[in-house]
Amino acid sequence: MTARPPLRLLVAGFGRVGRTLAGILASRDAYPGLEGLDVAVVGITTGSHGALADAKGIALAPALAAFAEHGGFTSGCAGFAALDTAAAIAALEYDVLVELSPLSVAGRGEPAIAHVRRALALGRHVVSANKGPLAWAFRELTALAAANGCALLYEATVMDGTPVFSLARHGLCGNTIARVEGVLNSTTNVMLGEMERGASFAEAIAAAQRAGVAEADPADDIEGWDAAVKLAVLANALMGAELLPEQVERESVAAATGARIAAARAHACRVKMVCELTREPDGVRGRVRAKELPADDALARVEGTGSIIRFVTDILGTFTVAEERPDLATTAYGVIADLFAVARRGEG
Amino acid sequence: MTARPPLRLLVAGFGRVGRTLAGILASRDAYPGLEGLDVAVVGITTGSHGALADAKGIALAPALAAFAEHGGFTSGCAGFAALDTAAAIAALEYDVLVELSPLSVAGRGEPAIAHVRRALALGRHVVSANKGPLAWAFRELTALAAANGCALLYEATVMDGTPVFSLARHGLCGNTIARVEGVLNSTTNVMLGEMERGASFAEAIAAAQRAGVAEADPADDIEGWDAAVKLAVLANALMGAELLPEQVERESVAAATGARIAAARAHACRVKMVCELTREPDGVRGRVRAKELPADDALARVEGTGSIIRFVTDILGTFTVAEERPDLATTAYGVIADLFAVARRGEG
Repeated sequence: MTARPPLRLLVAGFGRVGRTLAGILASRDAYPGLEGLDVAVVGITTGSHGALADAKGIALAPALAAFAEHGGFTSGCAGFAALDTAAAIAALEYDVLVELSPLSVAGRGEPAIAHVRRALALGRHVVSANKGPLAWAFRELTALAAANGCALLYEATVMDGTPVFSLARHGLCGNTIARVEGVLNSTTNVMLGEMERGASFAEAIAAAQRAGVAEADPADDIEGWDAAVKLAVLANALMGAELLPEQVERESVAAATGARIAAARAHACRVKMVCELTREPDGVRGRVRAKELPADDALARVEGTGSIIRFVTDILGTFTVAEERPDLATTAYGVIADLFAVARRGEG
Repeated sequence: MTARPPLRLLVAGFGRVGRTLAGILASRDAYPGLEGLDVAVVGITTGSHGALADAKGIALAPALAAFAEHGGFTSGCAGFAALDTAAAIAALEYDVLVELSPLSVAGRGEPAIAHVRRALALGRHVVSANKGPLAWAFRELTALAAANGCALLYEATVMDGTPVFSLARHGLCGNTIARVEGVLNSTTNVMLGEMERGASFAEAIAAAQRAGVAEADPADDIEGWDAAVKLAVLANALMGAELLPEQVERESVAAATGARIAAARAHACRVKMVCELTREPDGVRGRVRAKELPADDALARVEGTGSIIRFVTDILGTFTVAEERPDLATTAYGVIADLFAVARRGEG
C-alpha cells in the first residue's frame, strides 16, 4: 500500500460528541488500533460558538482547551475563522463532512439535510451522527451519494457506535429482515428504572436530567420522537422502507404509570418503551410504545442507559446486539468506525 | 455490473449443516435476499457416504432426496463420483472449498487443515465451518490465503452464523479488544438448565442428547474442548494471538455440581460455563470454566441452545451479541454470509 494523504475532515458541530471525538483523535497514541486511521481536521464549525479552519490540520488539544476556557472559539484562538457551517461546506477543502449538529425534530432534520446535500453534491463523503438527514431524506441523499461516488455513513445514529448498520451491511447479506425491535431511548429507560424504584414521573425526569441523560427540555425523548426518528433510520436503511418519523405510531412514556409498572411486576413482567418495526403487506410499520415484557426477555433486562436491538431474519433467525453502560466515547466511536469505512473505500 | 459466472462450490462434508445449506440453496426462491448470490455446487464429498460431481452444477433437491433415501450417495445417484475429499480438491474445477467436515479434536484439526491448505495453495477461496483449521493453523493458513490472493472465511465456527467475525472485521476497526467472554457451548448450557431443574449429571447429558444438541459421545463438549477450540479461533482472529486449544485452561461441566448450582441460586447467581479471553502482558489467556454469575448479567441469562459473546474494547466500550433459539439454518447461514463476502471481493 502506498502512503496516502490524510483524510481531511470538516466537523460540523462541537457539542459533547464532537469534543469527545476531538479528544480521542488528540490522544490517539493511547489507542493502538487508531494507528491505521490517518485523518486531519481542517475545519470545525458550530451553531453559535465560532469556528476554526486550518488547511494543514487543526491542533486539537489546544483547540479543546481554548473551547473549554472561553465556552467557544473566539477571535483569539489559533485558526479562528468567520465561517458558519454552510459557508465552510462550500469554501473549505476537505474529504469528509462529519455532521455532528443537534437533531431538530421541529425542523424535520434541517438544516443538517441541506448541509449533507450540499457536501454530497460537491463530491464529498459524509459521516453523520445526526439522525435527521437519514430519517427525513434517506432515499434522496443515498441516491445523491451513489450518483457522486461518495460514502454516506451513519453508524452513530442508533445505539451510539455499537455496530448496527455495518453489521447489517456485512453480516446479514442474503437475509430479509422481518422484524426489528429494541429499547433505544436512554432517557425513558432511565426514567422507567427510577419509577420501578418508586419515583414519580416528575422525579424520574429530574433523575434522568441529573444523570446527564435527558436534555433540559426532554420532550423529544418523553414523547417518543427520538425513538421514532431512530426507527425511521433503521427502516430506511435495513428494510428498504420509506418511513418518516411522523408515520411511526408514538406513545409517551407517560403511558407507563406507576400502577401499570407495579401490575407488570406482579406478573413477572417489566414495562419498557419498545421500538418496533414489522414488515407488513403494505409496507414497514413502526411503533414506539410502553409494553409489558416478560422479565426474562432480553429487551426487558436493559438497565439504565443501555440499549438493545433484536433482529428477526428469515435465514439466520433471531439475534440481539446490546450495548452496556455506553459513554460519550461510544458515540464518538460510531464516527470513527465510519471514517475507517471511508478510508477503506480507496483500498479496493 | 456485468453478469459474472456463478461461484463454483466444492462442498466437503454433508452432515446436518451441509444438508441444510443444500436445502436452502435448493429452495432459494423462498429467500428473496439470496437473489444476489449466484452459486453452483460442482462437488459434494463425504467421509464415508460417497460423493457427487457435476461441472455444470449438481441438482440439489434430487441429491438431497437420494441421500435421504440411501443414507448416502450411491452409484445409482446422478453424478456419483468415486472421489474422496483430497482427490476432489485436486481434481475438480471450483472457486470455493466449503469445508464442512466434522471437527477432530484428537486429530488437532486434521485432515481438514490439509484440505484447506491444499485448496489455498491451488488458489481457491475457502469457507470453513470446521473450527479445526482456524484453531490449530490460523497463522499459516491466513498467510497462505493472503499470499495467494484468496479469501479464508469462517463465520460459522463460533455462534453459528450470527455475525461475530464480520462484525469485528467491519464494525470494530480501530478498537483494541481487551477482553472477550461468552457462553458458547450449547450442550453444557442445556445440561446446566436441566440440572437447575433438578436433573442429575447423567440425566442432564441424556436430556441434551434427546434434544439433538449433544453428540452420542459428548466428551468434547463436556470436557470443554469445543469451547476451547472456539476460544482459540476468537483469540487468533480478533486479538492477534497465537493460541492453541491445548493452551486454553479447561474445566469440565462436572465442576458445576447440583450443590454448587443450588448455592449460587441462593445468592441470586447462576452457574454458567464461561469462556474467557483476556489480554495480559505475556499474551492472550484463554479459560473455560464453571463460574457463578449474578443472575442479571447478560451471560447468566442465556437459556438452552442460545449463546452470547461480550466484547470489551478500549474506545467503543462493552457490548454483547446473542443468538436466540438457533437452528441448523443459523449455522448454514454462516457459510452463506461468507459466500456473499467472497462474491463481493470481485466487485471492487
